[in-house]
Amino acid sequence: MTSNNSSDIENLKSRIDEQGNLVRKLKSDANPNKDEVTAAVQELLKLKEQYKTLTGSDVPSSGAAPVRKEKEKKPAAVVTKQSEKEKKPAAAAKQSENEQTSASGQTDLKKQTKLGIEFKKEENLADWYGEVVRKGELIENYDVSGCYILRPWAYFLWEKIKAFIDDEITEMGVQNCYFPLFVSYAALHREQTHIADFSPEVAWVTKSGDSDLAQPIAVRPTSETIMYPAYAKWIQSHRDLPLKLNQWNNVVRWEFKNPQPFLRTREFLWQEGHTAWATEKEASEEVYQILDLYTRVYTDLLAIPVIKGRKTEKEKFAGADWTTTIEGYIAASGRGIQAATSHHLGQNFSKMFDITFEDPQTQAKQYVYQNSWGLTTRTIGVMTMIHGDNKGLVLPPRIAKYQVVIVPCGITASLSKEDEEALIQTCKDIEGKLKKAGIRVYGDYRDNYSPGWKFNHWEMKGVPIRVEFGPNDKSRSQLTVVLRHTGNKSTISIDNCETKLREILEQMHKDLYTKAKAELDSHVVVVKDWASFLKALDNSCIMLTPFCGEPSCEDKIKQDSARDAVVEEGAPAMGAKGLCIPFDQPEKLAEDQQCCHPECKRKAKYFTLFGRSY
Amino acid sequence: MTSNNSSDIENLKSRIDEQGNLVRKLKSDANPNKDEVTAAVQELLKLKEQYKTLTGSDVPSSGAAPVRKEKEKKPAAVVTKQSEKEKKPAAAAKQSENEQTSASGQTDLKKQTKLGIEFKKEENLADWYGEVVRKGELIENYDVSGCYILRPWAYFLWEKIKAFIDDEITEMGVQNCYFPLFVSYAALHREQTHIADFSPEVAWVTKSGDSDLAQPIAVRPTSETIMYPAYAKWIQSHRDLPLKLNQWNNVVRWEFKNPQPFLRTREFLWQEGHTAWATEKEASEEVYQILDLYTRVYTDLLAIPVIKGRKTEKEKFAGADWTTTIEGYIAASGRGIQAATSHHLGQNFSKMFDITFEDPQTQAKQYVYQNSWGLTTRTIGVMTMIHGDNKGLVLPPRIAKYQVVIVPCGITASLSKEDEEALIQTCKDIEGKLKKAGIRVYGDYRDNYSPGWKFNHWEMKGVPIRVEFGPNDKSRSQLTVVLRHTGNKSTISIDNCETKLREILEQMHKDLYTKAKAELDSHVVVVKDWASFLKALDNSCIMLTPFCGEPSCEDKIKQDSARDAVVEEGAPAMGAKGLCIPFDQPEKLAEDQQCCHPECKRKAKYFTLFGRSY
Ligand SMILES: [Zn+2]
Ligand SMILES: [Zn+2]
Repeated sequence: MTSNNSSDIENLKSRIDEQGNLVRKLKSDANPNKDEVTAAVQELLKLKEQYKTLTGSDVPSSGAAPVRKEKEKKPAAVVTKQSEKEKKPAAAAKQSENEQTSASGQTDLKKQTKLGIEFKKEENLADWYGEVVRKGELIENYDVSGCYILRPWAYFLWEKIKAFIDDEITEMGVQNCYFPLFVSYAALHREQTHIADFSPEVAWVTKSGDSDLAQPIAVRPTSETIMYPAYAKWIQSHRDLPLKLNQWNNVVRWEFKNPQPFLRTREFLWQEGHTAWATEKEASEEVYQILDLYTRVYTDLLAIPVIKGRKTEKEKFAGADWTTTIEGYIAASGRGIQAATSHHLGQNFSKMFDITFEDPQTQAKQYVYQNSWGLTTRTIGVMTMIHGDNKGLVLPPRIAKYQVVIVPCGITASLSKEDEEALIQTCKDIEGKLKKAGIRVYGDYRDNYSPGWKFNHWEMKGVPIRVEFGPNDKSRSQLTVVLRHTGNKSTISIDNCETKLREILEQMHKDLYTKAKAELDSHVVVVKDWASFLKALDNSCIMLTPFCGEPSCEDKIKQDSARDAVVEEGAPAMGAKGLCIPFDQPEKLAEDQQCCHPECKRKAKYFTLFGRSY
Repeated sequence: MTSNNSSDIENLKSRIDEQGNLVRKLKSDANPNKDEVTAAVQELLKLKEQYKTLTGSDVPSSGAAPVRKEKEKKPAAVVTKQSEKEKKPAAAAKQSENEQTSASGQTDLKKQTKLGIEFKKEENLADWYGEVVRKGELIENYDVSGCYILRPWAYFLWEKIKAFIDDEITEMGVQNCYFPLFVSYAALHREQTHIADFSPEVAWVTKSGDSDLAQPIAVRPTSETIMYPAYAKWIQSHRDLPLKLNQWNNVVRWEFKNPQPFLRTREFLWQEGHTAWATEKEASEEVYQILDLYTRVYTDLLAIPVIKGRKTEKEKFAGADWTTTIEGYIAASGRGIQAATSHHLGQNFSKMFDITFEDPQTQAKQYVYQNSWGLTTRTIGVMTMIHGDNKGLVLPPRIAKYQVVIVPCGITASLSKEDEEALIQTCKDIEGKLKKAGIRVYGDYRDNYSPGWKFNHWEMKGVPIRVEFGPNDKSRSQLTVVLRHTGNKSTISIDNCETKLREILEQMHKDLYTKAKAELDSHVVVVKDWASFLKALDNSCIMLTPFCGEPSCEDKIKQDSARDAVVEEGAPAMGAKGLCIPFDQPEKLAEDQQCCHPECKRKAKYFTLFGRSY
């Protein structure tokens, strides 16, 4: 896939539209950041200039993408009072037998157009994503830029992830605790390599009420420098080791890149584990054990494949000896994404914070070996990006708050009151049966929404299975079952429906994983020369390539691969960075294999995964 | 109990000592607050002046209270390598048959002196409290004033409280979510009455890295103004009501009063529930339902009695129509303490934030009725203050991380290796048996600490039951059981020990509650005139007194009851404030009952609970 002139223009137009949206969005912010706005405007002007150069004319105003609706109006639900008889006129007969769009009359169709996801994932990923997280009710906008409201639908996912991790780390002997949100300047600056990476993003509290604080106090970007002075106090003997603590908390990194819910936010939720060990060997083992746990969060809960590896020197955690990572892949953007990291800090922090114990053999003072590891609410963003489709969210069944929704259908004017009540009662019986079987189920009996509206609503929210139940289903003792991830519709018998539904949910998890795995596998390519590297990058791939490991060379690779790149969401054309050095190497490197960058004269050390990234 | 001259002098001396400690503490802070230090020094000078006036001489330097040891040294545990034979020389025979102080030789005694709680609860409450929370391993000091590290021993208590509340509110249909830490100036200042109370304590972020933010951003002191703009968006129809959300998060209130772990901290953890309703009646019902839940946290989990009531006009939550509260009582200080609050906000916030729905009958725009309710980590401080004793923490059994510790005893040089191993193995068998029975148990098999050291250690940490198990116990198939709250020692048979221990734990909960209830009941007194009011206050009581309800009169009561007051911890002499108007009134007010303040000419409206408070 090489770029041609007309697709260049199309791409440029769409980038201009997106940049325009970004500028509007930034300006409409309650606290607009001037630097951000200025930079965004300059970028927009630059793009318009490029357009004129390329086409000889100004950007046509008709080319503007639909302006994103900032205020999502509620659907025009039937809230006016009606007599019992006139109720639900729009709900056509045989609703359960029809597709949702044909299920109701013109009014419902109109509602659904307004209601549904307007942007297409394959056409406008950033806007699609924004729409899905909002209409899927994961996120609500907030008037501080880069901060978002996590609605119950999202927070439930986080609680599931939390419970999964908590169970496992408790089993490993890790204890939960809580350290302060604030950190003094002195403590924060104790480890220099570490703080160098964080300091531009640190938020500082300088006032309380109207008074200036004597010393500014930082809001934690991570807690190494907050926790380790206490570790120095608590650890004296080798019997105090290992010390394994974890926190579930909020951290703040005041980034100025374009924020995206879950993926890049100024405040996020995470867990941060911090452990101290007598020996490097034990510490290292735990690094991998935690990476395995994180992998299972993705594979077993979220149905997402990841690639395990080590970060390059350039990309490792500031202050760590080495960083292990799991990397995901977003097919829709062709970009890799860091999914979670587990760091071996070596003795870097223990030397700075004087965390020592007496060696039981030699009585000599020894510095402890330390790890830190974290997994964030980014998980939810990755899940949305990977499984979501043009109807909205697709929640993997093991983590979905509701695995099944039951929607009573076919309640029309011609149905008797008794039959209606009996139908609803059967729905409730089924609901009770599923609950008892441990399936998370919700019966949607609201009478102010049509079945068609409900189908759409729960599809946008990503509920794995919709059960439709109408008079026909009742007379046949069956349920009509619609699967969110495929749209497949089938019927199952009411008898033993809980067993069948559980099977379907399990299969759905496998299907989602398999699909994501196929997408990943078809986009990880082994390339050994620079031309193939660039070509693969243009094809939205991530590349396994021989690499010398040098940070300066990695900079060159990133810079030189950025040249022709066309990237969505109005960001500057993005080069490929080192995602990880996969533990699972694709093949043995040839003895004389050169590094992939044409100007690099060094020999390659390992295959490294490169790609655009979040 | 009226004050006489010599006790006045003693009291003054102790206040001077405490104030001196406070000054040293403030000065030694990493970020000393100048205003705080100046104020504390001035108070100290004032007290010294008073002393000189009263006695005619300067304060004797020998009167200084022991300086609190800021850095707790680890016990001199046996960490040097010894040959197998020489191990544990200090562990005397028949350890399990002896009291801890006599259990080991001189060395151990010395250790225990260093280890134990040095301050007495009845003599120096503030220092006792500080020592107990630190040596009990709930808290570690931190270098930002007013912020503390919650160690796993404390965090477990919080997790238990959290689980208890989460189960119940989930049952009530409340959903968890997460709103941002930061709030814009505009949003924070939307409700004026509300912000007036909080604004002096609000921490402001003004910089990120080296750059000034365009607008300062506040760190949440509570989330009403953060959440309600979203409520306005989400609520349109009466079918969107009730909306019931809850958050578990951290909040910051930059107080300048003397901080105390859990009781008054600049950052604390809590849950905040925020609900919106169509009618005042439904909303009000929930206020009481939540207050009942909070009551059960105290009575059922923490074994603490509380008094339910409504806050006075002066003390109600800023922006609320009315506030309900549960009030605890700390016998050791004679002070009441607010234990949790549940507020009915009426339509105050809905009018400010335009949270409306269409009335289903009239189609008119209606403002919603709102509640907010919160319970904080203060719970842990109240528990410590009420149940703790001169040996340290006393954890109520239902919330203790370990309900039982098993300490193998009598492992001396004369015991054969086989017998030692068999003894330990039996301990482990018992441990397994208790675990299986759902008892939270810890077997302390560390061989570098003597049994005496362990007894002391687990007593300081407040573990409800210590099981000692030595050769004598083994030969008699019994366990020696020592109860933390009474020190009582008895033996029980190994057979069915899990049943017996469970019974003991349940009884212990009742005992602790009964003791605290008796302390409370004997200190709540009904007083109808001002002289009795002051006398009761001097006797460390909290007073049920006829009160007119006027904020100005409440100010007078506070001011005029402060005159002769002697209060611990170096705070200025403290008057009595309105704790609550108890739902359970002691008697019917006489028709012509005047308000208790001698200058108030108004009639009393209700009995109100007054007292010194935290
Ligand atoms: Zn190279
Ligand atoms: Zn009065």
